[in-house]
Amino acid sequence: MSRLVMKFGGTSVGDVERIARVARIVASERKPGRGLAVVVSAMAGETNRLVALTQGAGGEGTETALGGQDFDDEYDVVVSTGEQVTTGLLALALRRIGVPARSWQNWQIPFRTDGAHSKARIADVIEERIGASMDEGVIAVVPGFQGVTDNDRITTLGRGGSDTSAVALAAALKAERCDIYTDVDGVYTTDPRIVQKAQRLEKISYEEMLEMASLGAKVLQTRSVELAFAQRVPVRVLSSFVEPGAPNPGTIVCGEDEIVEKQVVSGVAYSRDEAKITLLGVEDHPGIAAEIFERLADAGINVDMIVQSEARQPGRQNILFTCPDREAQRAVASLEEVRARLGVEEIHVRRDVAKVSVIGIGMKSQAGVARTMFSALAQKGINIEAIATSEIKISVLIDAAYTELAVRALHTAYGLDGA
Amino acid sequence: MSRLVMKFGGTSVGDVERIARVARIVASERKPGRGLAVVVSAMAGETNRLVALTQGAGGEGTETALGGQDFDDEYDVVVSTGEQVTTGLLALALRRIGVPARSWQNWQIPFRTDGAHSKARIADVIEERIGASMDEGVIAVVPGFQGVTDNDRITTLGRGGSDTSAVALAAALKAERCDIYTDVDGVYTTDPRIVQKAQRLEKISYEEMLEMASLGAKVLQTRSVELAFAQRVPVRVLSSFVEPGAPNPGTIVCGEDEIVEKQVVSGVAYSRDEAKITLLGVEDHPGIAAEIFERLADAGINVDMIVQSEARQPGRQNILFTCPDREAQRAVASLEEVRARLGVEEIHVRRDVAKVSVIGIGMKSQAGVARTMFSALAQKGINIEAIATSEIKISVLIDAAYTELAVRALHTAYGLDGA
Repeated sequence: MSRLVMKFGGTSVGDVERIARVARIVASERKPGRGLAVVVSAMAGETNRLVALTQGAGGEGTETALGGQDFDDEYDVVVSTGEQVTTGLLALALRRIGVPARSWQNWQIPFRTDGAHSKARIADVIEERIGASMDEGVIAVVPGFQGVTDNDRITTLGRGGSDTSAVALAAALKAERCDIYTDVDGVYTTDPRIVQKAQRLEKISYEEMLEMASLGAKVLQTRSVELAFAQRVPVRVLSSFVEPGAPNPGTIVCGEDEIVEKQVVSGVAYSRDEAKITLLGVEDHPGIAAEIFERLADAGINVDMIVQSEARQPGRQNILFTCPDREAQRAVASLEEVRARLGVEEIHVRRDVAKVSVIGIGMKSQAGVARTMFSALAQKGINIEAIATSEIKISVLIDAAYTELAVRALHTAYGLDGA
Repeated sequence: MSRLVMKFGGTSVGDVERIARVARIVASERKPGRGLAVVVSAMAGETNRLVALTQGAGGEGTETALGGQDFDDEYDVVVSTGEQVTTGLLALALRRIGVPARSWQNWQIPFRTDGAHSKARIADVIEERIGASMDEGVIAVVPGFQGVTDNDRITTLGRGGSDTSAVALAAALKAERCDIYTDVDGVYTTDPRIVQKAQRLEKISYEEMLEMASLGAKVLQTRSVELAFAQRVPVRVLSSFVEPGAPNPGTIVCGEDEIVEKQVVSGVAYSRDEAKITLLGVEDHPGIAAEIFERLADAGINVDMIVQSEARQPGRQNILFTCPDREAQRAVASLEEVRARLGVEEIHVRRDVAKVSVIGIGMKSQAGVARTMFSALAQKGINIEAIATSEIKISVLIDAAYTELAVRALHTAYGLDGA
């Protein structure tokens, strides 16, 4: 007996015709000895409609408190109905084409989370009943994005939580794989809108996918990849717009050990949502950097790259960091407050910068990867403003105007251009 | 510790402003030592929207089967979300005005029904957890119209089931009363659109209310009155459009023994949705009537009045019955099939008839009630086509054109006209 979990997002189940199409895709995956579960989102637009209702009725979305009372538990009661509707509709659509199916609400499974309403974390999925039903050939349809607490209250996982629900269910069911159907047909070596020769990857490791996801290749929620990595669940990203039964290989996200031919660089990612903040002439004694970044953390700034260098004056240093562009003003404001005490001479902000990264697990065992990057950029006359590296990634900060040029140059330099 | 159950229908919770108003009404009923539960319907229009979705997705509403599989369980999964949304929104609206509240979905209570999806009957309500929470001053908000089976599947009770939910919850909670908020301010001696002097009744017995409800005074669902009667739950019908806190006595529906001054006649009801079917010259031997009405029952005809009389020819009889007007054609068709075998000479249908009834528990101990009725109608020149009586009701069938005249004449004759 094998088991497969499939997941369809809000666009794929946006109306009853699309739900009927999803039913045909699910039916095409049936085979003897295989149990199927389908995780679904709310129909596109539904969650926004429900959130708007809660705002009219007294909640202000998430994290609102009034008179010491939290609103998020009842917000979850309202918002979670969107997925419940889809589960019923998909079960009906499956039966209509003669496929046995039933919906499983989270409390029926049960699918447990902690009590952090509107942003709950998955605690435990009891697979006994649902698994037995699947093994009998009845397709299980499960609402994503939600769960129940030990105390039987309804929770939601926060936006985008449906991918994570699907992976958690796949882990509990010991499924062979979790197939995430989406509006793209897989993970690409880079953004096909910039590089026409971008190629769909057959396989990518969890580590690479995490770097890709957090760098703006928004195919999978980072949280779901982390969970798949931790639980060793193979995930496949594939298109929900291919005809049911037609070839649709997608991209498999799996462990490094399952990728035989490791590419030195698997992909080139970029992010334009960057700001560079430079602190000039900071006093150079122990604890200063700690104080600066504590200050930024308190202000909720997501600091990414950090570069420290000696300043021209003795006893002084320069510190450069990047953060999301929308947080730049807040970052500067929080530093201005302590500027005098830290002895910062100048604060410069540059907002027209982009981060370009090359990612690949093969990098670990390969020398010269950075050199290839720097020379490819130099040949195009692109200046590097900062560099950050990890085991499987090299990122550079450049003038945003050169983003496409840089991505194309790197894609060619690492041999990723298709035929 | 006392407990009160309040119920608000779809129009009363039709948008977030109305839900905020309901919250203020509920808040005005709080007092020390009293636990409150509120049963709510789906926002007006929501149930129809959800039913339409299920039809698009493969169910055809209720009682549809395809390939031996029933669709109603998943229909219930979809349709039941309407009330769940209202429970969350009302709980939020209550908290917004500083009143502790939480929603209780049926599976959380649990509120058990049988497994007859889309038309389930209530089996058992476990009041321990919800009652304890109410007694601590937290207002319980409960979705009407639904429940869960022993096997944890979601059920719905069928349209109008929310009144019944409220009464069942009140019975389980041993509530002092179940207050049904509606778009009228109580039960009247007759239809105020016909008789301007119609008066709101302070009290009415369950038996009288049952006769009123089944005769077309659609204030309360018959099923909810039957349950209230069986469980001895006092029910109050009152307006949801009065300012919160303003006088709003409504009408109490209670046991006969709690009504000290029993009116001979409490109300005059009428129904225009009637058809009269006459079978002339039916053979007069045992079993013929049984065969006719079995035939009608098989065809799903709701037969109401039945009058049997001797025909002019010896060995023959005439049989007259009434049924809802929309069923008349079907009734005749089903009888035509067996007409020859039963020896029926003629079948006549008259569709422009109305039933007018006087109802009162005082009738039991009072002579001359029928005489008053017949003479009042005779004085207006109204011909009676058939008569049916029960312990607390006398109904007559008349030409539909005289309906208003008859209702007004009877309202006056029994002393029901107000000042």
